[in-house]
Amino acid sequence: MAIHSYPGRLFNRLFCDFLHLHSSHYHHGRSKRLLISRFFQPMNLRDDRMTGAGRSSELSCKSQRLMLQAGLIQPANTGCFHYLPFTVRAMEKLVRVIDEEMQSIGGQKVDMPSLTSASLWKISERWDLLGKELFRLKDRHNVEYCLSPTHEEAVTELVAMQGNLSYKQLPLMLYQVTRKFRDEPKPRFGLLRGREFYMKDMYTFDVSEKAAMETYNLVSDAYTRIFEQLGLEFVKVQADTGSIGGKMSHEFQLPAEIGEDRLLMCSDCHFAANVEAMMGAETNCPQCHGKLRESKGIEVGHTFYLGTKYSRILGASYSNTENKPIVAEMGCFGLGVTRILAASIEILSTEDNIRWPGLLAPYQVCIISPKKGSKEELVTELAATLYDTLIDALPQLHGEVVLDDRSHLTIGKRLKDANHLGYPYVVIAGKRVLENPPVFEVSCQNNGKTVFLTQEGVLDFLRNVKVA
Amino acid sequence: MAIHSYPGRLFNRLFCDFLHLHSSHYHHGRSKRLLISRFFQPMNLRDDRMTGAGRSSELSCKSQRLMLQAGLIQPANTGCFHYLPFTVRAMEKLVRVIDEEMQSIGGQKVDMPSLTSASLWKISERWDLLGKELFRLKDRHNVEYCLSPTHEEAVTELVAMQGNLSYKQLPLMLYQVTRKFRDEPKPRFGLLRGREFYMKDMYTFDVSEKAAMETYNLVSDAYTRIFEQLGLEFVKVQADTGSIGGKMSHEFQLPAEIGEDRLLMCSDCHFAANVEAMMGAETNCPQCHGKLRESKGIEVGHTFYLGTKYSRILGASYSNTENKPIVAEMGCFGLGVTRILAASIEILSTEDNIRWPGLLAPYQVCIISPKKGSKEELVTELAATLYDTLIDALPQLHGEVVLDDRSHLTIGKRLKDANHLGYPYVVIAGKRVLENPPVFEVSCQNNGKTVFLTQEGVLDFLRNVKVA
Repeated sequence: MAIHSYPGRLFNRLFCDFLHLHSSHYHHGRSKRLLISRFFQPMNLRDDRMTGAGRSSELSCKSQRLMLQAGLIQPANTGCFHYLPFTVRAMEKLVRVIDEEMQSIGGQKVDMPSLTSASLWKISERWDLLGKELFRLKDRHNVEYCLSPTHEEAVTELVAMQGNLSYKQLPLMLYQVTRKFRDEPKPRFGLLRGREFYMKDMYTFDVSEKAAMETYNLVSDAYTRIFEQLGLEFVKVQADTGSIGGKMSHEFQLPAEIGEDRLLMCSDCHFAANVEAMMGAETNCPQCHGKLRESKGIEVGHTFYLGTKYSRILGASYSNTENKPIVAEMGCFGLGVTRILAASIEILSTEDNIRWPGLLAPYQVCIISPKKGSKEELVTELAATLYDTLIDALPQLHGEVVLDDRSHLTIGKRLKDANHLGYPYVVIAGKRVLENPPVFEVSCQNNGKTVFLTQEGVLDFLRNVKVA
Repeated sequence: MAIHSYPGRLFNRLFCDFLHLHSSHYHHGRSKRLLISRFFQPMNLRDDRMTGAGRSSELSCKSQRLMLQAGLIQPANTGCFHYLPFTVRAMEKLVRVIDEEMQSIGGQKVDMPSLTSASLWKISERWDLLGKELFRLKDRHNVEYCLSPTHEEAVTELVAMQGNLSYKQLPLMLYQVTRKFRDEPKPRFGLLRGREFYMKDMYTFDVSEKAAMETYNLVSDAYTRIFEQLGLEFVKVQADTGSIGGKMSHEFQLPAEIGEDRLLMCSDCHFAANVEAMMGAETNCPQCHGKLRESKGIEVGHTFYLGTKYSRILGASYSNTENKPIVAEMGCFGLGVTRILAASIEILSTEDNIRWPGLLAPYQVCIISPKKGSKEELVTELAATLYDTLIDALPQLHGEVVLDDRSHLTIGKRLKDANHLGYPYVVIAGKRVLENPPVFEVSCQNNGKTVFLTQEGVLDFLRNVKVA
């Protein structure tokens, strides 16, 4: 008997096992308070409890050490990490910033498979070229695949399959934010060089080289805006096109001692390049002959003008004004999503305390309640009231405020933990909550300042906090 | 020379190549209008242009056919699909609904690697048990991995590594929404049975069997709320525990002819079970001896009470009130994210027209502008003005309204396209925009009704549209 013949409601009433009825409205009401005592390990991975990979000598950079200590990541396999709740929150915020910028320039979001067939990579001759960096596998029918580290072939085939792009649809800008795979010879530095990582990759299709260059600059400018929003100083350098190929390439580098890229920059003009992109070991600027200085950087973005390298061999073309098929000019544009997170921490943090780009901090505000047994314990509900009032009055802080309810710990100990994790604002219900009206201590992590404010004052103070 | 010695601003001014300066403020202003003429193929994959996989006989279900025709998916490899922009938008909405429910019951979001080492799967003896369903590969050092179809081993090891969970932290509920891999013997029906797919998987840890059962019901209730919000009728049936193992299991099934699961349901009591969970071919209800009826369903959710199967062998324990280590009681809970999308389309659509759960529709509103050459073309800007006014007046519709500016096509043709794609609301600037005041035709796809409204009326009409 076909299920379809039952009216839905009756069907459920008659047959459903354990069916619980609930309001079917999508609820946006106040959620429960976020209590640190219930968090999965933001402060549990202390120095004295560091597990295997955490303790070993491979722990050679600050961001990896801090992220392990604070319970932001946990090693799984070589070069593969569990991203724990704080990291997931920061990553989701970064993805929102990236989505906003990519879509503001016309980017359309797609999601391509991780498994790409060997046959496609053989067409571009990269099946052999990438050698051991490709993770390769066979399915149950003995068909060969790789785990895609990048998707030039896949996206070009996807566009070629449409076979009916009009010049009016160009530039076509497709992007995704997905997990990528690379069998690194030396995975290290935590999320800075892993074997599984998240990347934003955009692929663009244009009518001509001139149009492709305009698109190239459009995307590069969007990258600039992203790093500016994050408050990260960067250098855009001329780069080698490597195994991706193409005619022109730039990298977005974050200057850092730990960086694995060597950059050469001219003190007199705007020239900057990755050493890999230079012919031999030059000491003078090829543009103005000024002296070149060397520095190190973490590559967080890479842009390529590809020309027709992939579109020609895979047949990605468009119809021009005369309805004639023309091979599209391509560009590709990567941002290392998980790498940007780790690089930000590497660059902004002190030796002991994580500092985030304000927009990416997993939670914006931490409220520390009075210690159990203290005089202030009498007004311990003031911390909870402040929590609820903040959420009600400032909707953008919904989900952004945590309450450190571990009242068996001193305020000093909890403040140290909060400093360690890098909440931009820490609000302490300390001695002065006994005053009338009660006064809270607000510590601003990004400028080190402390102010004393009433509840009303705290609300005003946090009114303009930006949340991605 | 260390880069660090430069003050940041100066550094950029001196050395940056092509540095463009922009406002560093995070901008939330009006984005450009979303024009259908610029979309990547929402309407490009017409019947007459179906490519290879689209045309073949494997096209045996409605949702796959409709999703291919409408340009929502594109086949890549066997059982692997490109998710195109409409699908990505619907999926992101579904993930928001799921996140909201999982977090409302205390779920904490993590992200675990796809690569899991063979050694971990050998501890649970599932390395052999899963046979050909596991995609297996070796890295450059000849170490064996699989592409995880599920993460019981990984999450249990993750929790075991903490070694310091307190009973106060339980129930601990960790979940993720990530891509999973399964080398299906017969991938088919598009996103209903693929080899790469998105799944939400939650893993819970409790102090006792009783507490674990409470958590089990808590998560099951959250699943119920998710399907109710989506307006999908479901059946919760007793299920086989399969290769996951454990002591108890239920499936959430969406009744559908195309479903691959056979369900037995009692007409007299609440009993319902997957045939796989029954001992032999019973025809009478084991609870009330009423007659069992058979139906087919698409499995979209699966819950398991695992007991200590994984926690015991991997050492995931907590400290009880006497500070004694006790093995945690576990549960695991899956939702097929991409499968829910396809199943919704399978169930809600007509033969020709896609229908979405209202909350998941990729865009809520489509505005159709007057045809070129028609009398109404004189007031063509009314459609654009309506677009801008909608976005300004109803912030929840930001990014949710598209303008079908393909004015070379008749309104009828574009309305057919809009019906095909399933926008919940289609607003047509037809003949009556010449009236004073101008009148728009609003077609509501989910109840088939049409109303005629002024711009003010359209605003009122759409004021309460819910967007995930």
